[in-house]
Amino acid sequence: MLSDLSLATPDAALSARVSARIDGKTKPPGSLGRIEALALRLALAQGREAPIVRAALLLCAGDHGLNAEGVSAWPSEVTTQMVLNFLAGGAAANVFARAAGAEVRVLDCEVAAPLPDHPRLIRAGIRAGTRNALREDALTAKEVSAALVFGAEQARAAVEAGAGVILLGEMGIGNTSAAALLAHSALALPLGPLVGPGAGHDAAGLERKRAVLEACAARRPGPLSPEAALAAFGGLEIAAMAGAALGAASARALVLVDGFIATAAALLALKARPGLAPFLQFAHRGAEPGHAAMLETAPEAGAPLLDLGLRLGEGSGALLALPLVTAAAAMLNEMASFESAGVSGKAG
Amino acid sequence: MLSDLSLATPDAALSARVSARIDGKTKPPGSLGRIEALALRLALAQGREAPIVRAALLLCAGDHGLNAEGVSAWPSEVTTQMVLNFLAGGAAANVFARAAGAEVRVLDCEVAAPLPDHPRLIRAGIRAGTRNALREDALTAKEVSAALVFGAEQARAAVEAGAGVILLGEMGIGNTSAAALLAHSALALPLGPLVGPGAGHDAAGLERKRAVLEACAARRPGPLSPEAALAAFGGLEIAAMAGAALGAASARALVLVDGFIATAAALLALKARPGLAPFLQFAHRGAEPGHAAMLETAPEAGAPLLDLGLRLGEGSGALLALPLVTAAAAMLNEMASFESAGVSGKAG
Repeated sequence: MLSDLSLATPDAALSARVSARIDGKTKPPGSLGRIEALALRLALAQGREAPIVRAALLLCAGDHGLNAEGVSAWPSEVTTQMVLNFLAGGAAANVFARAAGAEVRVLDCEVAAPLPDHPRLIRAGIRAGTRNALREDALTAKEVSAALVFGAEQARAAVEAGAGVILLGEMGIGNTSAAALLAHSALALPLGPLVGPGAGHDAAGLERKRAVLEACAARRPGPLSPEAALAAFGGLEIAAMAGAALGAASARALVLVDGFIATAAALLALKARPGLAPFLQFAHRGAEPGHAAMLETAPEAGAPLLDLGLRLGEGSGALLALPLVTAAAAMLNEMASFESAGVSGKAG
Repeated sequence: MLSDLSLATPDAALSARVSARIDGKTKPPGSLGRIEALALRLALAQGREAPIVRAALLLCAGDHGLNAEGVSAWPSEVTTQMVLNFLAGGAAANVFARAAGAEVRVLDCEVAAPLPDHPRLIRAGIRAGTRNALREDALTAKEVSAALVFGAEQARAAVEAGAGVILLGEMGIGNTSAAALLAHSALALPLGPLVGPGAGHDAAGLERKRAVLEACAARRPGPLSPEAALAAFGGLEIAAMAGAALGAASARALVLVDGFIATAAALLALKARPGLAPFLQFAHRGAEPGHAAMLETAPEAGAPLLDLGLRLGEGSGALLALPLVTAAAAMLNEMASFESAGVSGKAG
């Protein structure tokens, strides 16, 4: 998966310098808990003692042919309507991005219905939605590859424009189904616990979703490689996020991963390229029941920072966690040291 | 405790309007989890459908006579040095406040050593530090009352200057000891689990602290009223925070409470005035082992938002949680509704 992108290995000398810098700040050593570990991860990902805080959300939208089988409580048109909402600035992602000081880049990865041109809409130009994964493979290998490359290029472009933190978020009616199938087939997790209510199912809807996903998994039994799983089950927005994780890491940015679906994308990229781990920071543990099991497969990535019962997507959880990354960077960049502030050490 | 301050009771009609507004935003109902509950608590505390996000940290510093008994790993001079660090803008509280967009008001409540005049230092003018609570009561009833009134006045002044969220934070070498004694004597919690390493004790230091606190508790056995407990064990900065919680609530601000010591202050105020509960939001569950037990005594207040292993104080945890309050307000104030954005409802 994007085997031509090189990933830096952790720099032990930089790690020692940053750790010493954190311990020299005016606070008892370790007293800022996980903020200190986050500061170290950020500095090592960027390869800089003084990290960059500028952040960009890559908001990847795509439709799913499988939604014809009733796997979501919402119709596919909502994907398009929400992309228009993102472009108008009225969605949770926009509002939280403004509050946290992040840029939002809307990537059409792609939705089923044609979208009007818009100066802030970036089109992948691959295909309008995926095929129905119950009947046939959702994507060809070539389409998967194109989406991976598109995501990687968009992430690298955002880093080149100044971002040091890349947030991964998505919108796609039906995409908790694709994410569950991907985690099952490429990460060898049992399917049952991965099937959850998504954006909101009643008991009957959840049973219908479960039956459809079991049939999809039976059509293409695992284990599958990340690329093969993406071809079997889609979606293009998930492939784009997987590519974006690798592209961001290769350009030395921290990757801040949103909920269930973005996590599946990041874990597929990690499965293909284990060297991605030091660049990954999970933002939160979400309400979708299978999210915790997915997160536990990657203990070497940054464990989730928040646990707020979120299940919206759109990068909203990553945007809510971003101020913690900003604070960690500010601790490194702005806080006084014992020496500079003339503060005494411990009594005994 | 400050019985002349009136606290508004929750407005059921406003609650219904705000809940409907949250459910009408472009997201599946409930999908923003605890952010939705936080938005409702904020709106009800302020009595406004469109909440104010401006925030001020009341950073209350004070010294403890009990520190002569070796209850902290740090000398009392560090309190003074850290106040100078706050005034110079180099402490974690300053750095996190700038990142979160909060004002910092440094209240001398008071430290043992004389502080130079500074335009951003507000003096309580009560007494320099508390008496040694192992030998005698730390404060007189009059001193407790003066600190409560000072805190309440400072909170009301910050709200009058435009703040809708008041953060409670503190600095005081030795004040985890006072907080543990207060929670034990006024909230009827067992003392043992409340005694923790504070800003950093080795095993021997922790045993010394435990023995001293047991002797203090034996000198003034509980249950004690909040005021009597504050007189017995101090400190002035804790009394000021308790007063500030009541003052802020009476002026219709949300009170965002930092860690172990600020929590003890808020819980004493709540014990005296149960009507404070709807105005209280705990910021985080900290690393001090007794914090969780303290938090569990107030299920009607807002449960902690973060769990990051923090044990610094200074309001740092409240400042790290503040962006979640800001995001909750932005959701109410800025996010589009299904109607305004033309987004469809559920399929089924």
